Amino acid sequence: MTVDISGAASFLREHDDYMILTHSHPDGDTLGSAFGLCRVLRALGKRANVTCNDVIHHKYDYLLVDEQQFTPETVVSVDVADPVLLGSNVMREYGEKIQLCIDHHGTNKLSADFSLIDGSAAACAEIIAKTAIELSVEITADIADCLFTGITTDTGCFRYSNVTPQTHMIAAMLIEKGARASEINEIMFETKTVTYAALEKLALETMRFYYGGRCAFITITQKMFEISGSDESECEGIAALPRQVEGVLVGVTLRERKDGTFKASIRTRNGIDASEICTRLGGGGHKNASGCQLEGDFDSATQAILKAVGESL
Amino acid sequence: MTVDISGAASFLREHDDYMILTHSHPDGDTLGSAFGLCRVLRALGKRANVTCNDVIHHKYDYLLVDEQQFTPETVVSVDVADPVLLGSNVMREYGEKIQLCIDHHGTNKLSADFSLIDGSAAACAEIIAKTAIELSVEITADIADCLFTGITTDTGCFRYSNVTPQTHMIAAMLIEKGARASEINEIMFETKTVTYAALEKLALETMRFYYGGRCAFITITQKMFEISGSDESECEGIAALPRQVEGVLVGVTLRERKDGTFKASIRTRNGIDASEICTRLGGGGHKNASGCQLEGDFDSATQAILKAVGESL
Repeated sequence: MTVDISGAASFLREHDDYMILTHSHPDGDTLGSAFGLCRVLRALGKRANVTCNDVIHHKYDYLLVDEQQFTPETVVSVDVADPVLLGSNVMREYGEKIQLCIDHHGTNKLSADFSLIDGSAAACAEIIAKTAIELSVEITADIADCLFTGITTDTGCFRYSNVTPQTHMIAAMLIEKGARASEINEIMFETKTVTYAALEKLALETMRFYYGGRCAFITITQKMFEISGSDESECEGIAALPRQVEGVLVGVTLRERKDGTFKASIRTRNGIDASEICTRLGGGGHKNASGCQLEGDFDSATQAILKAVGESL
Repeated sequence: MTVDISGAASFLREHDDYMILTHSHPDGDTLGSAFGLCRVLRALGKRANVTCNDVIHHKYDYLLVDEQQFTPETVVSVDVADPVLLGSNVMREYGEKIQLCIDHHGTNKLSADFSLIDGSAAACAEIIAKTAIELSVEITADIADCLFTGITTDTGCFRYSNVTPQTHMIAAMLIEKGARASEINEIMFETKTVTYAALEKLALETMRFYYGGRCAFITITQKMFEISGSDESECEGIAALPRQVEGVLVGVTLRERKDGTFKASIRTRNGIDASEICTRLGGGGHKNASGCQLEGDFDSATQAILKAVGESL
């Protein structure tokens, strides 16, 4: 059953002993939303904990709360768009027991007793902020830090097209309440791991241009992961680099996998459709960011991608 | 004489035939403020033009207005903190005639009949936005684009510590009025020139770590400018890179100048004082960003800097 902010607030007021579920490979929005909501519930006098299927990166340490001892009675998920994203352990324990699902993915596929879905929110943390206000909970600096983290990470520091006037209005309110905005932004956007920095350097050395500079192409080999100490989990940042060069409409990052196959990430702009390019290669995705898998060797994979890119340019 | 927003608005209502001055080496805030104010004045039925000592980079083309034909009677400066920043040509023609100075640098040194200075504003464009509201001018999408450009560029896309709740409130209003926020952010923050991308690649290859990874050091030679086609004007972005690596407290960029001397840019965090390090080397600046000049050869300059860095670590 679908509920609005007021319905979700009533639900939260009427229940107790919460377990809040995040998605696996947790990001700033699922964690900021979960720990923000956890603090809001505790401020209401409830007991509440957060669980995650995977290890939480140490950069999010400032979000965490001490665990309380109780038997969970009410299960709420935040920023979880699909049951598979809960991860196997959390899925097994709580997957069938979700009473309230709070999310900003319009495509949400979770089955829950009650669902508060707002696809217009840039981050799930925006919805939590509005819920906290509806609950008349005083937004402390700690709560503000959590919710600001969710908003700034899911918007690339207010850079992406998902940002609305409401996003900025809520950010203004959170800073007013004490969110340490610039410190959080520095941790999230101005800090590269040593291994990522090493991988980035190696990857940039491989950048080549095609189609008169309209396509930039980066290659990442297993050897580069070895040298840098990095791994596939750090490739998301690299994939953004080729498109950043002026005049480039299609940025390609081709990376070698352990099993010898290849993963291509394609980023486009100015109306070039990345999902169209990837569909030609058996993949898919969004208009400006898509991916596909390829077999063969580096040369044949490169040629196949360049051919598909050429058809769109 | 100091005026507030209401005083500046009265001044602007009472005069006509405006020439708006920007600072030399123009950035997004001086240009966004100037062309935003120009459009506001024209909306009031006034004649207004903008002048700049230097060529305006083509990425700012969307800010520009057609030049009107008239003899300037009223001179207003925006975002110009010091007379020397006007540049020699603008200084000669208008330096002594500035009637209204609008700026967000608390240290403003311009002499003008009236000064509207608000050191708490993250960008001069914030002050122009408030002035436009005070003048009851309808903020069109074009005006909103100009003012949003000023705010986003001077805050590093809402990243820096100068951002206040007011900054986000005004951004919300400008997006509501039609500012193309994500397109502007893409132009300003997701686009590197081909020459910059080439220089960045060469510079990253030189990165070395000292003091157990607490200092990262990048070197830029004249040869690298030759190979990349880049020049000193593009070094600002490079200077931010060494500090970005996790664990690095002091990021150093040492670049060779045409005359064989060296310029060092030092960026710090976690309380390490960059200006203290640079003062030891005869330079100075801000707490987290400072610079100094050095003579000798690369080796002796590097050793001198590392010694000064070591004393602060």
